[in-house]
This record gives sequence, C-alpha cells and structure tokens, in this order.
Amino acid sequence: MSKGTVVLAYSGGLDTSCILVWLKEEGYDVITYLANIGQVEDFDAAKKKAESLGAKKVFIEDLRAEFVEEFIWPSVQASAIYEDRYLLGTSVARPCIARRQIQIARQEGAQYVSHGATGKGNDQIRFELTCYALYPEVQIIAPWRIPEFYNRFVGRKDLMEYAEKNGIPVPVTPKAPWSMDANLMHISYESGILENPKSHAPAGLYLMTKSPEDAPNSPDVLEIEFKKGVPIKVTHVKEGKSKDTPLDIFSYLNEMGGRHGVGRIDIVENRFIGMKSRGIYETPGGTILYHAHLDIETFTMDREVRRIKQGLGVKFAEMLYNGFWYSPECEFVRHCIDKSQERVEGKVQLSVFKGQVYILGRESPKSLYNEDLVSMDVQGDYDPCDASGFIKINAVRFVSWGVPHC
Amino acid sequence: MSKGTVVLAYSGGLDTSCILVWLKEEGYDVITYLANIGQVEDFDAAKKKAESLGAKKVFIEDLRAEFVEEFIWPSVQASAIYEDRYLLGTSVARPCIARRQIQIARQEGAQYVSHGATGKGNDQIRFELTCYALYPEVQIIAPWRIPEFYNRFVGRKDLMEYAEKNGIPVPVTPKAPWSMDANLMHISYESGILENPKSHAPAGLYLMTKSPEDAPNSPDVLEIEFKKGVPIKVTHVKEGKSKDTPLDIFSYLNEMGGRHGVGRIDIVENRFIGMKSRGIYETPGGTILYHAHLDIETFTMDREVRRIKQGLGVKFAEMLYNGFWYSPECEFVRHCIDKSQERVEGKVQLSVFKGQVYILGRESPKSLYNEDLVSMDVQGDYDPCDASGFIKINAVRFVSWGVPHC
Amino acid sequence: MSKGTVVLAYSGGLDTSCILVWLKEEGYDVITYLANIGQVEDFDAAKKKAESLGAKKVFIEDLRAEFVEEFIWPSVQASAIYEDRYLLGTSVARPCIARRQIQIARQEGAQYVSHGATGKGNDQIRFELTCYALYPEVQIIAPWRIPEFYNRFVGRKDLMEYAEKNGIPVPVTPKAPWSMDANLMHISYESGILENPKSHAPAGLYLMTKSPEDAPNSPDVLEIEFKKGVPIKVTHVKEGKSKDTPLDIFSYLNEMGGRHGVGRIDIVENRFIGMKSRGIYETPGGTILYHAHLDIETFTMDREVRRIKQGLGVKFAEMLYNGFWYSPECEFVRHCIDKSQERVEGKVQLSVFKGQVYILGRESPKSLYNEDLVSMDVQGDYDPCDASGFIKINAVRFVSWGVPHC
Amino acid sequence: MSKGTVVLAYSGGLDTSCILVWLKEEGYDVITYLANIGQVEDFDAAKKKAESLGAKKVFIEDLRAEFVEEFIWPSVQASAIYEDRYLLGTSVARPCIARRQIQIARQEGAQYVSHGATGKGNDQIRFELTCYALYPEVQIIAPWRIPEFYNRFVGRKDLMEYAEKNGIPVPVTPKAPWSMDANLMHISYESGILENPKSHAPAGLYLMTKSPEDAPNSPDVLEIEFKKGVPIKVTHVKEGKSKDTPLDIFSYLNEMGGRHGVGRIDIVENRFIGMKSRGIYETPGGTILYHAHLDIETFTMDREVRRIKQGLGVKFAEMLYNGFWYSPECEFVRHCIDKSQERVEGKVQLSVFKGQVYILGRESPKSLYNEDLVSMDVQGDYDPCDASGFIKINAVRFVSWGVPHC
Repeated sequence: MSKGTVVLAYSGGLDTSCILVWLKEEGYDVITYLANIGQVEDFDAAKKKAESLGAKKVFIEDLRAEFVEEFIWPSVQASAIYEDRYLLGTSVARPCIARRQIQIARQEGAQYVSHGATGKGNDQIRFELTCYALYPEVQIIAPWRIPEFYNRFVGRKDLMEYAEKNGIPVPVTPKAPWSMDANLMHISYESGILENPKSHAPAGLYLMTKSPEDAPNSPDVLEIEFKKGVPIKVTHVKEGKSKDTPLDIFSYLNEMGGRHGVGRIDIVENRFIGMKSRGIYETPGGTILYHAHLDIETFTMDREVRRIKQGLGVKFAEMLYNGFWYSPECEFVRHCIDKSQERVEGKVQLSVFKGQVYILGRESPKSLYNEDLVSMDVQGDYDPCDASGFIKINAVRFVSWGVPHC
Repeated sequence: MSKGTVVLAYSGGLDTSCILVWLKEEGYDVITYLANIGQVEDFDAAKKKAESLGAKKVFIEDLRAEFVEEFIWPSVQASAIYEDRYLLGTSVARPCIARRQIQIARQEGAQYVSHGATGKGNDQIRFELTCYALYPEVQIIAPWRIPEFYNRFVGRKDLMEYAEKNGIPVPVTPKAPWSMDANLMHISYESGILENPKSHAPAGLYLMTKSPEDAPNSPDVLEIEFKKGVPIKVTHVKEGKSKDTPLDIFSYLNEMGGRHGVGRIDIVENRFIGMKSRGIYETPGGTILYHAHLDIETFTMDREVRRIKQGLGVKFAEMLYNGFWYSPECEFVRHCIDKSQERVEGKVQLSVFKGQVYILGRESPKSLYNEDLVSMDVQGDYDPCDASGFIKINAVRFVSWGVPHC
Repeated sequence: MSKGTVVLAYSGGLDTSCILVWLKEEGYDVITYLANIGQVEDFDAAKKKAESLGAKKVFIEDLRAEFVEEFIWPSVQASAIYEDRYLLGTSVARPCIARRQIQIARQEGAQYVSHGATGKGNDQIRFELTCYALYPEVQIIAPWRIPEFYNRFVGRKDLMEYAEKNGIPVPVTPKAPWSMDANLMHISYESGILENPKSHAPAGLYLMTKSPEDAPNSPDVLEIEFKKGVPIKVTHVKEGKSKDTPLDIFSYLNEMGGRHGVGRIDIVENRFIGMKSRGIYETPGGTILYHAHLDIETFTMDREVRRIKQGLGVKFAEMLYNGFWYSPECEFVRHCIDKSQERVEGKVQLSVFKGQVYILGRESPKSLYNEDLVSMDVQGDYDPCDASGFIKINAVRFVSWGVPHC
Repeated sequence: MSKGTVVLAYSGGLDTSCILVWLKEEGYDVITYLANIGQVEDFDAAKKKAESLGAKKVFIEDLRAEFVEEFIWPSVQASAIYEDRYLLGTSVARPCIARRQIQIARQEGAQYVSHGATGKGNDQIRFELTCYALYPEVQIIAPWRIPEFYNRFVGRKDLMEYAEKNGIPVPVTPKAPWSMDANLMHISYESGILENPKSHAPAGLYLMTKSPEDAPNSPDVLEIEFKKGVPIKVTHVKEGKSKDTPLDIFSYLNEMGGRHGVGRIDIVENRFIGMKSRGIYETPGGTILYHAHLDIETFTMDREVRRIKQGLGVKFAEMLYNGFWYSPECEFVRHCIDKSQERVEGKVQLSVFKGQVYILGRESPKSLYNEDLVSMDVQGDYDPCDASGFIKINAVRFVSWGVPHC
C-alpha cells in the first residue's frame, strides 16, 4: 500500500538516485523530474537510470526558453546583484525549476515533492518557498533534513555502499573535491577544498569560461540592443552576425563571454540561513548583460527614477537570493521595476577582452542625454547664473549648523 | 584702491591665468593657490608664472597625504560608488582642495575666493559648498558664471587673444580635444569630442593606465592588509616588497593597477545640476581597493549590519558626488560608516591582470566565517531540522495571500 | 506696446492686487486666474475687483472635484506625511492650481505666468516646478524675488500706499498678525507672531475646526468604505446618512472632523529652501482619512509589500512637499503606490471625539487577516514546533558574532 | 536524579504555575524568576506561590529603572514606532526581562531557561533571540511548542484540572475574555473576543488610561526638557511640580497621560511569524514622549540628518518588534541613532487633553531654527533671487523628459 506519490527533483547523480530508491523503500511511488535549464547533462541516460531504479514516471523538461524570458530577463531589468557582487545565477534558476515540479505534482495528483538539497544551504529554501507559494497543501520530503536519512548516510561512502546494494550505478570517475551547480546563467563552485576561504581556487576549476590568460589577444566587439530593459538583439560588430531570440541572445553572450574569460568571481557571501559561505562563480553572458543594461538604463532613465529603482533592485536581489520569487513583495517589486524600464531602449557597444567588459558607446531614441545642454562649447538652454542661486540655497542649511572643525 | 583680496584656485593653465589677470583688472588683490593632490604638474613653473602675472602671494600646497588619509580612506570604507560605476575620483578631491583654499583665505584675511570651474559642472558646487560650510561669510567669484566674463570669453580664441595682450604665456602645444582632470585617485576625461555618447574613446586617451592589450601577460599578485576598513599594508606576494604608509600604499596600488590597465570606465552619469554627461575615468589603485575592501568587509561584517551600511554608503556616494562633504548629514554618515568598520580587518590576496582585479582568498582574525558551521562534511553546531521550521514560518504569509498565477 | 501676456494667480487680496497693477505698469497684459479649491472666498467680488483693476480677462475656476480625486486621493493612498507629522495640505494644492494656470496660459497664448508667493517659502518652488514641467518655455514673473519690486514694497505700509494711489480697494479690517492659507484639505497658519517657536498659538486662531474643549461631549461614529485605497463611501453609523462622491465624502469628513476638533498640529518643519519654519495646521477630513486608510491598508496588504510601500510613501511625501508632483520620479512612485493599493478594500469603523480619531474595527473581503491562524483557541493550519526552528535559524548569525556585554 | 536546572520566567498565574509543576514532573530543578517592570502585581504572593509549588529558588527582580533607562530611552531617541502606529511597549520589555533571566541562569549554573509564551506569538522569539544572543549554549524549554505539553493542555479546563490535582491555587475570578500584558510602558490586550477584527473593544477594557469621555474637562500643561534626545525633566507648568529621574519622569508622564486618556490604539499588525493579529494598546507616557521628542528633534536636528535617522528609526522599530535587540545590527543602529541625538536638547511645552497630546511651543539652546532667516518681515542673511536659480536648476531634468499629459 503506497503512502502516496512524490515528485522528486532528480539529477541523475548518486545522491538523488539513492533518494529515489530510499523513497520507494519508505513506501512512496516516485515520479522523477529533471529540468533542462542549460546545464551539460546526458538527459537520456538520466531518464533510463531513473526508470531502471523504479521511477513510476520520468519527466525531462526543457525549461531553457522560459528560464531566460521569465526569470533572467527580470533580473537583468533589476540589475540584480547580491551583496554588490553575486549575479544570482543559482538563485534565479530555483523558482523556475520548482514551478515546473509543482505543475507536475498537481497534474499527477502527487501530494509530495522531494529534493536532494542540503540542510545548510539556500536552495532548500528557494525550492520550498516556491512550492509552498504555488501549492500550499504540498508536503515536502527533504531527506537531508530527516535524521533517519542523514544519520544513515553520513558520508559519501555510505551512499556508495547503499548504491551498490541497491543496483544503483556507481560513478566511476572520482568526485571533484568541491560541489558544482550549473545552468544557462552560470556555474557555481563551493564546498570541499573551497571551504577554506584563504586557499585559492585551483586552476582547472572553471568549465564555462576560458582562463583570461588563455583568452584571445584581441577583443570581440558586440552591439546589444535593448527594448523595455531587455535585450532584443545582439550583433557581432565585425562579423555582422546577430541573434534575436532570448535564448539565442543569451547563449551567444555566454559563448562570447566564455571565450574571453568574462564573469569569474570568488566571494564570501551571507546565506539566508545566517552563515557565511565561500562561493566561486562564473557568469559570462550575465556579466556582459549586467554592464550593458546598466549603461543603457543610465542613459535613458531619469536620475531620480533610477535612484528609487536602484533601491528596489537591491530589495529584489535579496528576495531572489532568499527564495522569495513567488511572494507578494517580489511580485510587487517586479511590477515596479518593469514599469521603470518602459523607456530603457537603445544600443550599447562593448568589447569583451581578457575577463573584462568595456562599454564603448551608446545611442538611443529615448535618451535623456542632451548634447547641447551639457556641451562646454555651446550654451544650450541653460543660464549659468542659475547655478549660483542653486548652490547658495543648498548651503542655507549650513549656516545655522555652524562651521565644522577641519 | 583694492576691492579686497581673492584667493584664486590656480592651475597654471590658460583659463586660470586669464582669470588671475582679469581679477586684477577688476580691482582685486590676487593670491594664487595650487594644490598638489598627485597630478603631474610643473609646480615650480606654475609658481613663477603666477608671480610674473602679478599674484600678490603664491601658495603651492602638497596635500597628497591628507588627501589619501582624510578623503580617500573614508570613501574606501564606504565602498563609495556613484550610480553603481563611478568611484568618485574627482568628487573626493574637491573638498580637500577647497578646505585648504579656505584655510589660506582665513589666514590671509581674504574676503573672496575664486575658481575656474565651469557653470554647468559639478565642481563649482563641490568647491562652493565646501567654502560656504567652512567660511560662511566668504564671497565667491566664479567668472564662468559672470556674464561680463563669459560673454567676453566665448571661445578659446578669446582667451588666447587676451593672454597675448596681457603677457600671459600662451600654450604652444595644441589643446587635446577633450578636457581632463587628474589627481592621485584618477584621471577623468570629458567634453569635446567625448560629448557624443556614441563615439568610442580614442586609443591614446588614457594616461594613468596601460592599455589592457599592452599590459603584461602575467598577473601581479598582491596582499592587502586592512584594519578598521582601511589598508595598512600592501605586499607584492612574489617580490616580497611592501608599503605601509597611506600615501605609499595608494601610490603603489596606482602603479600596479596602472601597469595592468585596471579601472577604466566609460559612462554616462547624472550631474547634480540635472543633466546627463559622458565621462571616461581611470582609477587604478582605487579600483583595486574597492574590490579588496568589499571582500574583507563581507568576510568580517555581519550580514544585517552590512545591509544597513550598504544603504548608508549609497547615500554617502551621492553626498560626495553632489559636494556635501562638509554637511551635517555627511559628517553623520561618515561617523556611522566608520563605526561599522571597527572589525573590518584582515588580509586579502588578489591578482591584477589585463584590466581586471581577481580576489583569490582572504583571512582575518575578526572573520565571522565559520568553516565548521558551513561545512558539508561536518555538522558543526547546527541542526538541519531547524531549517524546516524556518522555511515553513517564512511561508506563513503566502497562505492568506493566495496562489499566484504561474 | 505690450511686453506680452501674463497669467497671474490672483487671490483678490492686497498683495496680488498690487501685483496686478504693477504688472500692467511694467507693460504686460494681465489675465487673472483664481482657483476655487475649497477656500472660503467671495469669488464674485474677486472677479469684479480684478476687472476693475484692468485685468484683460478673469478666470475663476472650480477645481474642487479634481483636487480631491487627482491630488488628495493619491496622497491618501500614499499615507503621505511629511516629517512624520504634516499631512501636506498646502503642498498638494499647488500642482493642482498651477496646472490650471498653465492650461490657461497655453490656451490664451500667454508667455508669462506670475504669482504672489514669497521668496523664502516652498510655494514658489511648487508653483514654478509645475509650470516648468508642464510648459518648459514659460517665463515666470515672481515679483517677491525681483529687487525693483521687493525693494519698493518693503512693508505692508508701502503696499497700502500704492493701493490708495492706484485705486486698489484697501482692506478695512486689520490684517491678522499671521498669514494663512486655506483649501479643502486644510488651513495653515504661519509668520507674524507665530514666528516665535516658543509662543503658543492664540486661542481664536483656528477657523476650520472647533476647539476640542468646545467640541461635543459624545463622539460621532463613522464607517468609511475603501476600494483601491481610496474612500468610496462614508456613512454616519447612527444617523445612517452617507456620501459617495469624492468631493462629498471629503467635505463630509471635514465637517465631522471640524465639529470634533480633529487634526490640529503645531510643528517646526524643514523647508526645501533649507530653513526651518513654524507652521500650525488643521486638517480635519485628511486626518480622519489618514488613520482610516492606514488601518484598512495594514489589514489587507501583505507585510513586506507594505514595508516597501511605506518607503515609497516617505519619498512621495518629500517630492510632494518639495514641489515635484510633475516629475519623472513622482509619476513613477505614484504608479507603484497605486499598484500597491489594488487590494486595499473594505470598511473601517471609527469615532471622532475631542480632537481624536479612534479606530474601532474593520472588515474586508480582501483581508489577509486569518482568524483561525492567529487564534489562541484553535490551532489553525500552523505547527508551533516550526517556530523553534525559525528562532534558532534566526539566531545562527549571533554565534560567530560573540556575546555582547550587557 | 535531576535533568538539570531551569530558570522559568514565572508570572504567578495559572499557566506558568502549571509549567513549574510540569517541569518538576519532567525531572528538572526549577528556579522561578519574576521581573518587576512596572506591572500591577502582588509580588509577595507570587513568591510564596512559587515556593509552595516547589521552586528551588525564587527571584523577584525590580528592573523598572533599567527598563526605562536602557530600553525605553533608546526607543524614544529612535522615535520607534512599528507599522506607523504601535509604540512597541511589549517588544521593548522583552530583552530587558530575558537579559536578567540569562544573568540568573549563568549565575545559578542553569543550562535551561523556560517561559510560558505561546507558539504563535512574537514574544517567544523576542525572549529566545535574547537568550541565544547572551547565552549561546543555553537550552530553551518552551512548553507551548512541545507536543506532549500542548496536546495535554488543550484548553483552560485542562490546566484547571491539572492545577487542582497538583495543589496549584486556582484563580477564583473568571478570566477576562482576552489576554493582557502590562508593564511600565503600556498594557496590551489581544486574543479571545478581540480576535474578531470587526468587533469593537468593550468599554471597560482599559486599565491604564481613563476613558477620554470621562477625562478632565481641562488640560494639563507640561514642559519636558530633553538632553541628548532623552527627557531629563518634566514640569507641570501650573503646579510647578517636577520630576527628574528617568523612572520618576516616565511614571509621572504615565500618570498624566493616564488621567487624560492618552495613547489608546486599536490596530491590526503583522507578526514576525507571518500572521496578522489584532492588538489594542494603551501607552500613556510613551505617547506623550513620542510627540514631545519628535518636536524637539525636528527643532534641533538638520533636515538631512533627520531623513537618514528616520530611516534608521524605521529599521530599529522592526528589529525591536522582531526581537533583535541583542543583534549586531541593532547595536549598530542604536549607536548611530544615539550619535544623531547629540544636539537634541531643549524644552517642549504641551498639553494633554481628552486623549490627545498638543504641542504648544518649544525652545532650545541648540535650535537650528533661525527666526531672522525665516521671517517674512526681515530679510535675514538671504537673497530671494537665489531661489530663482535654485528652482530653475531643479527643473533642468524635466526638459529632456518631456511634458507629461495632464
């Protein structure tokens, strides 16, 4: 007699394969679900593996286009960056993945969902907040937070033994001494030998970007065209080649950024759970877009609107990092930011070279830049005498305050 | 009969030389003042020139050390960055320069100060707000805002003619087709051919940094040690060489950053005066410090303290940009930020290479990073079950709100 | 030969009558414009007076309905309050008045507008920023900032003499020893004997509200119904009487608030111009609405949405106070706040009594209040054990930080 | 064999008496601790009761003075108010109470602390975050979150039966149909019949304040003197009577406020735990101080400093409400707010009458109010022409933006 049906977020790896078998052992029917969000993966092999381990049903879902359009694009509009450095490549994938998992659970009449995220990380929160938001009655089985599970599988050795005993194919190549999470937007590296915040990342770590030292000795120059704050076209200026669907644009920027080693960072960040952790990230296309969007935004957006929008963007980044994509406040903030992007339109030229993005120039039909007004050579519609009054009035407050020591 | 004494901020160039003579013509006694804030300049020649043009007294003041310690250091603590990109190299020099000008004016009994800043820029505001704050009764003569002056000197040609007529040495090399402002922290380039926001900066523009393309093919690795949020030592890891006074540290970082082409940006920014302008900046040492400080700060500062401090830093950057260094609010915010830096201490290793700064690792006696707590291999003092309650309580709000469409 | 046409904001009083004549004297054709925004005024008499003084055309415009719907309602949605106390009754009227003035100027082909606001106040800014926003080429004649005018009319005596000489009817009743500004939303009192911040306001000052001491000894109980954050109906609970158009609702709340002495404050505030000033205000209906709206908003809005909206409201209040209604940022913020009000719907019961507003209860079809969830008597869909994990995870940060002295 | 020692926050009531006995039953040694923070209580009776129920040791601690000086005063400086209405009377007492509990636990070598707070409220969080901050290794026993306890004591009837069986004196007067929490700062009322947000509070609910209807028909006028943002003296203007120690000042303001029915509110608020709850509060002295402090602060503090301080105050209120008094961020914010109060000094006159506080006037040696500057009768050190430039520069941004529809 089954306890019910679980939709398990299944990666094909050792951990979630063991969880699959364990869930069956515990009396559940298990449906596996694997999202294609752009990671390098043998989806067919994963499918067969899940079936062979007794999954009642196996879902492999290509979410790449919706990932770019519905999740990455709003983050680009927001200039979303966590703690001034992290472009949120893992965070932004989580609601996208969990949303489909919930859709499957509803469609298949499953009362449970399960995942292999650890009990110390952010991902458990991001997955589960999305699940609770979209399917409030759902019950979540998080084995790495269940004592019977985590006390049984204390180390990798225990998983290997369990795998062997239960006919789960055991990985033949040794595990990298760190863990990794990949999607279209980025790859993150953490844990293992990276846990020591002082030790440098090993040379061969990065998979998505070339080392800047080995990158080409001449830049590629790109032109990115934006409308309503999102890219609608990218053109390689010299080659004339261009892309104009969201997925193509983003993939091409990844290719260009990857070739030139763009977007590598090594940071210590603050998890929602209250601890600091060290993460290494490479976000090639996302880094290019961050810079290009910032440039066209400042060019076309009023100063004071931008100041308010900047504050909203900081809040958005926190929500995203903490897993609150499907929250009232995040929906509200996304709406406001989207509104702010109405005029964010135009073309930015930039070069990518040896790990860097250089903005070269920009133009826009919606520009608020007024060349006559700012010119040192013509007066424009501006009377310099007004500045005297402006300055004096701005200094009125100082008089009562008194002269500071200096 | 003299109208009184003016202290003129004198650069030795054509503009302020003409202003010097014009002020005399208008009936003032003129004292010239030239601050050494690290720009490349023939100070002796400037001195002689001012004397030969009739300056009553000539001050050449070496402000480099106080510029670093009293102005750049607080900006580093604040992670001061304007509109997400500009490190405020010009802005931060202005209160430093104007403060000394006011000290001279008071000491020399001058009722007037004068400067050659234009009527459309930020600098006039930064200079004058400082003057009004520190010497409320002072009167400011800003020729570029006085119709009799700016209508007389409409173009460079008029200045040249006036110079020739008045024995002012005329520059023999042609003027660059842009204007430039240099100090220890950066060089800015704007106006002239740069006013077209679409056109790329010419190749030979940059003076402080090597082109990344011509920069060395291998990185330099540095270790910067911080205490209370400011660098107290920089060491070249391979060479073992180190610097430990503020001015030496900053100059050395400029040298390293300059060698590797670090800190070039091309942006459109929003002036206080309400117009957008295009600026190109190179800030080699400041860029390295920005990244290194950010890293050690996140490592040693509590997440929520940092969130509040980040907001204060954004405000500080705006004040600094707008010229409010000597304002009640800026004094208050500097105090708060300084307080936040009490524990910001430790060493950051980084490499500079081809225009980029890469953080490699960090360590600190005041670190809030807890390797056991975060580890995937040991439990640390943490019960994963707590996370379940944490997540569920965070989702409580969602239930009443209802399930969003997705 | 006329210098052109001026649309003068004309109040019918001594000042603007003198300005009218002075403008003609200076060679302008003068159109007068008087807005009815709810102040007590003899509009017919003002019309005749303007005509008799040589106005080319006279506009008396009833703006009361649009004032409530387009200006007061958004302020209610925003919970707009300046420096925690001032409900912005004067500020909110200014863009409404100036907008119509500009519409008249455009329609009548006038190149100039003029007003009688002083050179030290906020109103000049509020009027003129609206004018520049809506009619960028307009030229503004502000006599109280023109030396020839203000040096000629140093005191009231000068105006009186000028009036007598020019056939301007001179007021027969002595001027109150303070100045006053009235509209549908409030009356403000300032200047004169009120300039001493220590001296108490005289007893007979208030015109819109009864003294709480003389107010009825029993409360009136009202029910206000909101939809999208604005009142759509007010009902007197005992009498059953109700109002349901914006102007009627607001007028009725003024009547009720006025009867019970609601909404009097005596404050020192910070003007945009940089000085502190003392103002006394009475805002009967606005005060009732502020409290009622706050109550229904907290009842129906998610906590975190409200936190963000609160920040936007503070910014909105500053913009409104400083005169930036027609600015890019204010338009943006109004849009965001309006979005936040979508679910702000329901009924609030309150009593007004002796200067106070007491919220008694509330109900809403969109309430996010969940009586079962919060109840101490039933469990609701809530597991108290979750709170343990929630608390412990919230304390994780403290451990690395160390035990504070206490 | 004892499981160890528990320090139980003991109120003398039915709940914590049952908890005391239950803890003993469970094998703990129990020390009871009752804080006197100004509530009306028979402390002697509580002491005897605890002893008779088998408490190993009984602590009755008078914390009133430190409650005022160390907790209420910083809240006054911050103008701490939660969600624009709630003065945080319960919240501010919690860290004060829990701190002493921890001091006792450390001193007595207890490994456990326990309290009777419910599993749905804020107080459990406030108590426990304080405990974890000050005594990280402590273990907390929260019976209302332990299934064996709360499933055994489902309703009051179960507690009564348990009490009878265990010799616990049973209350003879029937329980009020709501719950109540009292201290020097306020009394809160919630739960029971108040859980219906629509129903009005019953007439006889309030214990600390007179009904405004029954309050005296003439006001009392008080003068409060502040230094560094806290009151140092209160004087009854007519009677000449004054108080000058923190506890005396606060108690006297409670008396005055209570007499005139000041400080009653009925609100729905957002708990940290994510649910909305309805609370009714009376905060007589705190309400008077809130208004008086706001007045003297605006009088003596620079506008822009205040704007920043206001934002910090909002954050402080959230931290306080959520229980984060002893957190890195709250310590930081308290420091910053304290710094902002350096000049907040002077005297405020106000009247209390029929539920209201009316500010009448203020004076200060540190005032930033400049009567000459603001005067309509004298020019002061101000040139009205400057305002023209000020306004025009502020409008520069509008031109590129374009004319809005209106």
